[in-house]
Amino acid sequence: MHLRKEIAQQPAVIKRLLHQSREGTETVAAAIRERDPIFACIAARGTSDHAALYAQYLIGHRLRLPVMLATPSLHTVYGRPPDLSQALVIGISQSGKAEDVRAVLADARTQGALTLAITNFDDSPLAQTAEFHLPLRAEREYSVAATKTYTAQLTVIAMLASALTEGDQAMWDELARLPELASRTLESCASIAGWAERYRYSDRLVALGRGFNYATACEISLKVKELTYIGSQGYSEADFRHGPIAVIDRGYPVILVAPIGQTLPGMKLMAADLAERGAETLIISNDAALLDNATRGMPIPGAPEWLSPILAVMPGQVYAMEQALARGYEVDKPRGLSKVTITE
Amino acid sequence: MHLRKEIAQQPAVIKRLLHQSREGTETVAAAIRERDPIFACIAARGTSDHAALYAQYLIGHRLRLPVMLATPSLHTVYGRPPDLSQALVIGISQSGKAEDVRAVLADARTQGALTLAITNFDDSPLAQTAEFHLPLRAEREYSVAATKTYTAQLTVIAMLASALTEGDQAMWDELARLPELASRTLESCASIAGWAERYRYSDRLVALGRGFNYATACEISLKVKELTYIGSQGYSEADFRHGPIAVIDRGYPVILVAPIGQTLPGMKLMAADLAERGAETLIISNDAALLDNATRGMPIPGAPEWLSPILAVMPGQVYAMEQALARGYEVDKPRGLSKVTITE
Repeated sequence: MHLRKEIAQQPAVIKRLLHQSREGTETVAAAIRERDPIFACIAARGTSDHAALYAQYLIGHRLRLPVMLATPSLHTVYGRPPDLSQALVIGISQSGKAEDVRAVLADARTQGALTLAITNFDDSPLAQTAEFHLPLRAEREYSVAATKTYTAQLTVIAMLASALTEGDQAMWDELARLPELASRTLESCASIAGWAERYRYSDRLVALGRGFNYATACEISLKVKELTYIGSQGYSEADFRHGPIAVIDRGYPVILVAPIGQTLPGMKLMAADLAERGAETLIISNDAALLDNATRGMPIPGAPEWLSPILAVMPGQVYAMEQALARGYEVDKPRGLSKVTITE
Repeated sequence: MHLRKEIAQQPAVIKRLLHQSREGTETVAAAIRERDPIFACIAARGTSDHAALYAQYLIGHRLRLPVMLATPSLHTVYGRPPDLSQALVIGISQSGKAEDVRAVLADARTQGALTLAITNFDDSPLAQTAEFHLPLRAEREYSVAATKTYTAQLTVIAMLASALTEGDQAMWDELARLPELASRTLESCASIAGWAERYRYSDRLVALGRGFNYATACEISLKVKELTYIGSQGYSEADFRHGPIAVIDRGYPVILVAPIGQTLPGMKLMAADLAERGAETLIISNDAALLDNATRGMPIPGAPEWLSPILAVMPGQVYAMEQALARGYEVDKPRGLSKVTITE
């Protein structure tokens, strides 16, 4: 099974990036500082779009740079690209073959914007279109459901944010601990197989996070959807209160991504509210009290909040895989999907 | 039942806005032109966030202005607001009481950005915080599920885009036809009650759109979720291909928002692909061939693509209401929701 192997490779991929990509990242960061963009725009689809969400919060938080997600159809369908000339424009794609993502970068480069591709292949169309390329160094990913390339994307973004935060050696020091924290996270995930079958017959799931971990909730939801075909959905905890919370009734399984950090108090309130409504709370956290009160806890090691998304997604990947196995589904090649999706 | 009345009031609300708000809109447009922002940032939650999606595409399309959706938690939870000083910053909220939306506008105004609130109450906190306010003129909305305030938000945005597109009387001429088109749309919706019970026991739904009508798909999905508690989900047709399409199997109900326009060819391909996978296609369109091939068609009158979202959401509102009625649910006050949600 490729999926299980690729999940297990994540600490090694993160380690490789930290060892081999710091210089390249510093080069890109120097070019960005020189150009001094007024905002950033990120184009991506699917899993890569969740890496874009992480970048939106992390770059906004560290650099005070507003980050928008691109509107590819304005480039490809309507032929009316917005003026991105004063932006940093980033395209994220595992294969580097997403045609609409490439079109956004091509338009932006023509307009004079600074363009950066983040892909797993140096010779991909997206990498060839952008002025700069940061590789994922994840080796080939065989499973259709992306795992190691997602955490590699997050790691590249975290490294870029560190390089852009001048004089902040502390961020690099925190990054250096990531491979070991990732290994410990995967060790903790071993227990998930023991209780996953409780949800064998559930056809509903919601995943919630906020801030840096809004991306994590969306990505876990997508993994579950791809591997088990249930209509799971990821939300910002705040957005969830504005309507969707109506779906919750007794027994509804909800994954909460709630590591220690600025968003923890709000997530704790949500966990209590959900428990009162009778929901089953599956909690990914490093807060002991929160884990104790969960229907099922998925512990992760202590980590700085800005890096927690790289760890917190892993229990979700394993949960999705175990659900697929419990249901007897083909794990590496879900029905109706192919590894490379080209949309225009 | 308030909901049915409020859905029916939509043509009158749109007419009132067109008659009473043109001058106020031109004033705001003049201020925006004078400040000449480099990008726009919109803060909103829930249904209002879907109005923000419409604005993202419409303003991007007409003015080539990049539009980002805000990241409220960077303002309220992390205390690290991005630099919005060179942006046009818009807050959208029916009640004008969304505290995190207000916080984004307060920060932006302090930074020197041009700020605009779009709410239903002149004396709301959001209206009081922003430099400019455009009212929805929708009178009080009693039903928890927003309908007339949503199409009022879209109409205000369409008017603003028209006022910002200098010398374009054609857009105002097209807008003038909206009240009549809205009335005709609601007349066509009468047939939905006749077949809605086919989906009485379905607990799954996906809604798809693209470009201007990506917002419509999201909003219809939210209406169904609020009123019937099923985990419906709205997607961009392109994003749907990148993973979520795996959920589709025989009998899966999918609403396609596919009016005539630039996005129609892609939506037709998607409709054919879904039919091949055995899905039930519920199609909102003014394309005769597409309606003929649908499992159930929801016709809307011919309209310019940029205005079609104001019409195309209405069959979705009626569908959601009919589903709630068929299931015997309380329509005006869904479980677990209140009219005003205050998140920080």
